[in-house]
Amino acid sequence: MTTKSEKEKMISGELYLASDSQLTQERDHARKLVRIYNQTTETEVERRTQLLKQLFGSTGENLFMEPNIRCDYGYNIHVGENFYANFDCTILDVCEVRIGDNCFIAPGVHIYTATHPIHPFERIAGPEYGKPVTIGNNVWIGGRSVINPGVTVGDNVVIASGSVVTKDVAPNTIVGGNPAKMIKQIEL
Amino acid sequence: MTTKSEKEKMISGELYLASDSQLTQERDHARKLVRIYNQTTETEVERRTQLLKQLFGSTGENLFMEPNIRCDYGYNIHVGENFYANFDCTILDVCEVRIGDNCFIAPGVHIYTATHPIHPFERIAGPEYGKPVTIGNNVWIGGRSVINPGVTVGDNVVIASGSVVTKDVAPNTIVGGNPAKMIKQIEL
Amino acid sequence: MTTKSEKEKMISGELYLASDSQLTQERDHARKLVRIYNQTTETEVERRTQLLKQLFGSTGENLFMEPNIRCDYGYNIHVGENFYANFDCTILDVCEVRIGDNCFIAPGVHIYTATHPIHPFERIAGPEYGKPVTIGNNVWIGGRSVINPGVTVGDNVVIASGSVVTKDVAPNTIVGGNPAKMIKQIEL
Repeated sequence: MTTKSEKEKMISGELYLASDSQLTQERDHARKLVRIYNQTTETEVERRTQLLKQLFGSTGENLFMEPNIRCDYGYNIHVGENFYANFDCTILDVCEVRIGDNCFIAPGVHIYTATHPIHPFERIAGPEYGKPVTIGNNVWIGGRSVINPGVTVGDNVVIASGSVVTKDVAPNTIVGGNPAKMIKQIEL
Repeated sequence: MTTKSEKEKMISGELYLASDSQLTQERDHARKLVRIYNQTTETEVERRTQLLKQLFGSTGENLFMEPNIRCDYGYNIHVGENFYANFDCTILDVCEVRIGDNCFIAPGVHIYTATHPIHPFERIAGPEYGKPVTIGNNVWIGGRSVINPGVTVGDNVVIASGSVVTKDVAPNTIVGGNPAKMIKQIEL
Repeated sequence: MTTKSEKEKMISGELYLASDSQLTQERDHARKLVRIYNQTTETEVERRTQLLKQLFGSTGENLFMEPNIRCDYGYNIHVGENFYANFDCTILDVCEVRIGDNCFIAPGVHIYTATHPIHPFERIAGPEYGKPVTIGNNVWIGGRSVINPGVTVGDNVVIASGSVVTKDVAPNTIVGGNPAKMIKQIEL
């Protein structure tokens, strides 16, 4: 029987220790790339694209994110073609975050896969865990929205600004509020 | 018949292409000024005022914003006398943002004029548009509030922290919540 | 009869003038430390701990905050043992902010003690005031939450992401929403 590494546990959604040396090293590597990214200037368009391709697990050809970006590991983030994120996008990628093609992310959006046990003694003991986030194609996430761990957002969805998305969102819908609820169906 | 430039379309609220070369150049210019602003230190009070006066369309004599600030063009932002914005104010000014005298903006407030078509195929085709935001005199916008495109906020309004303001706000009222609703009238 | 300094008024929750020269000097000192902190890199773990211990009123041995941090004075912030705050934590500490042991703060949390008069003429006259915030032991504050001035949060509380906490929170509960309401009791 093989013992799973903390990284393997993390990615598969089991309790793991973030203080693990491999994970600490990988986070530091991502923080370094993120720091370099956030120090690039508006003239370094090519450099920014290269850094994102280096940081993320997979990307399309065409992608852009306005600094400051934040993430945990980077390699768990997969974005499709024509990805655009405005200022100050934060993605906690302890599990996979898969984002489809043609997605627009407005300023200040936070996407979380990281969570903790609810019971205080379990939580302060250290181990934490994550749940993946999946976002379809052609999704527009409005400014200052939060996407919670485990959420799946369908194709063509519009998430209104300031939404806190705690549950899956059906394709072709507009959602908004805290917690986010369906506002209306989009006729295609 | 004259053809409107993308900039003219943008400012008048019509669909426009942000990838237009003039607009890209103007955004880069604003990003440069913003970057310089965000690198100033707490001792450079005069320099900060000068940079804001250079960046914005018009200002009063007395204004202050704690870094980091973010905006799109700057020239569409008009602030009155005694303007104060705390940390991390983000203003997407593809259309005009007019803010009156004596306004206080708490940390992390986002003001958006930028929006996109709801229909996914129209949205991913590229053209986007905006709606102006108008904020009266003596308004206090609480921390982490979002002001949506097209909103007008009346004089003397208090917007509670964490509000998402999706509709016009009547003068002399306190609003709060997501979406923001009237909490009470302010007796003058 | 002794006259209170503006600082004494501020800390005791009375109306005070933030433009006071002592307070301005102290804010600038804090902003300098914060700026240095936010410029440290992921390799400077010890340096970060030292800077936080220098900045805050009191801390435990073990504490960590991901940049960028923001605060007003720093000396009014007291955090217990094993304090962890993720990216972009903002604490407006014009009055005391006391945080217990083993607290986890997710990205983008804002804690405010600073407030202003509701009446517009009183507000624009200048004097402002604050109310202390107290957070118990083993508290987990979810991402993008806001804690309002005067709030007390009990031990073992979980605050859901995106919450706007406007009232005291009873121990051993999960709260969420805007304004935050009890979602459920935590069985210990």
